[in-house]
Amino acid sequence: MPRRKTAKVELSRGRLLDAAAHIFRERGYVGTTMRAIAQDAGIEAGSIYYHYKSKDELIGAVLDFGIVELLSSVTSALSQLPADATPRLRIETAISAHVSAILDNGDYMLAMRRVFGQVPAATWRRHMRLRESYGEVWSKLLSSARRAGVVRTDADLTLARLFLLGGLNWTVEWYKPKGRPIRTVTRAFSTLILDGLLVPRARQARKPKK
Amino acid sequence: MPRRKTAKVELSRGRLLDAAAHIFRERGYVGTTMRAIAQDAGIEAGSIYYHYKSKDELIGAVLDFGIVELLSSVTSALSQLPADATPRLRIETAISAHVSAILDNGDYMLAMRRVFGQVPAATWRRHMRLRESYGEVWSKLLSSARRAGVVRTDADLTLARLFLLGGLNWTVEWYKPKGRPIRTVTRAFSTLILDGLLVPRARQARKPKK
Repeated sequence: MPRRKTAKVELSRGRLLDAAAHIFRERGYVGTTMRAIAQDAGIEAGSIYYHYKSKDELIGAVLDFGIVELLSSVTSALSQLPADATPRLRIETAISAHVSAILDNGDYMLAMRRVFGQVPAATWRRHMRLRESYGEVWSKLLSSARRAGVVRTDADLTLARLFLLGGLNWTVEWYKPKGRPIRTVTRAFSTLILDGLLVPRARQARKPKK
Repeated sequence: MPRRKTAKVELSRGRLLDAAAHIFRERGYVGTTMRAIAQDAGIEAGSIYYHYKSKDELIGAVLDFGIVELLSSVTSALSQLPADATPRLRIETAISAHVSAILDNGDYMLAMRRVFGQVPAATWRRHMRLRESYGEVWSKLLSSARRAGVVRTDADLTLARLFLLGGLNWTVEWYKPKGRPIRTVTRAFSTLILDGLLVPRARQARKPKK
C-alpha cells in the first residue's frame, strides 16, 4: 500500500476509534450501533467494516487503546528519567503520567466503566490480560521501592497499588479543565500516598503484628 | 393504613429497589424497562407503579439510596465513638464504615456508575445535592482534624478528600469476598492515607511554598 494511503487509513481509523469511545461511553455496549459510530466519525456506515469486522472487535479496540495509552504514557515517562532516579521520583513520575493519560483519554476511560459487564466474555478476558500487564508496571515500581528500603515494611503492596490507582482513576469523575492544574493535583496525590496526610507526631506507632 | 400492610408495602418496596439497582446496573438507564424490574422483583408489572410513578422516579430512588446508605453508615459509626476520640480514630472509623457500606450495596454503587450521563438532568442535579451533603461529612472530618493540628499544613483538603474517596470507591471494582477481609483492607487504606507508604527518612523535605 502506498504510504499516503496508509496515513489516510490510520487517520480515519483513529477518528473511528475516538468516535466509538464517545458513543460507547454515552450508550453502553448494548445501546451502541456501528451505524451510530460511523455517523459520529463522519464516515459511511459500510466503510466501518473495512477497519473493524464487528462491534465486538471495535469495543475490544476501544478498551485496549485506553490501557495502551496509560501503559505507553507511564513507561515512556519512566524511561526518560536518569538511571539513578530515586524510587520516590519514579513513583511521582508514574502518578503524573497516569493521571495525564487518563484525563487526555476521558472518553476511553468512561467507556470502559460504562460497558463493564456488557462486553462478550472472551473480549473482556483478553482485555483483562492487557490490564494486568499494566498493573504489573505498578507492582514492579512499588516492589523496587521496597527493595530500595524506602517503603514501610508493614505495607501490603497489592492494596497500596489498588488504593493508589483507585484514587488516580477517580479524577476522570471530577476533574474540570478550569479547576486546579493537573500538576497541582498530581503533586498533591503523590504527597498523600507517599508521605500521608498527617503530621509526623500524629502518625501511628508501629504495633507488633498480631 | 394498618401496620401489617405498611410492613408488607415496605418489604416489597425494598425488594423492588434492590431489583431496580440490579437491573440498572446490568442494563443502564436507557436499556432498563419497568417490566424487567418488576419481573426481577417477582411482582406484577402493573403494581410497580404503586411504588414509583416512573422509571425516572425509580432511578432517583436507587441513586439516592446508595448515598443515604453511605451517609447513615458513616454518621452512625462516628456517633458511636467516644466524645474524646482522636481525629485519627474518627477518620479510620469513617473509612471503615464507607468501605463496608460500599461493599454491602455493590449493585447500587455500580448502578450509579452505569447510568451516569443517561439520567434526566433534573434527577441527576437533585441527586448531586445529596451527594454533596455526603461529601460535606468528609470535609468536616478533615477540617476538624486540621484544626486539631494533626494534618500537614500544606495539604489541600479538597484534593485529599477526592483522592481518598476515589481509592475507597474503587474497592467495588476489585473486591472479592473470598479475598482479604474487609478489616484488613480498611486498615491498610487508613495507614496509607494517614501515614503514607514511605518510611520517614524517604519522606519529602517540606519546601517553602512557591
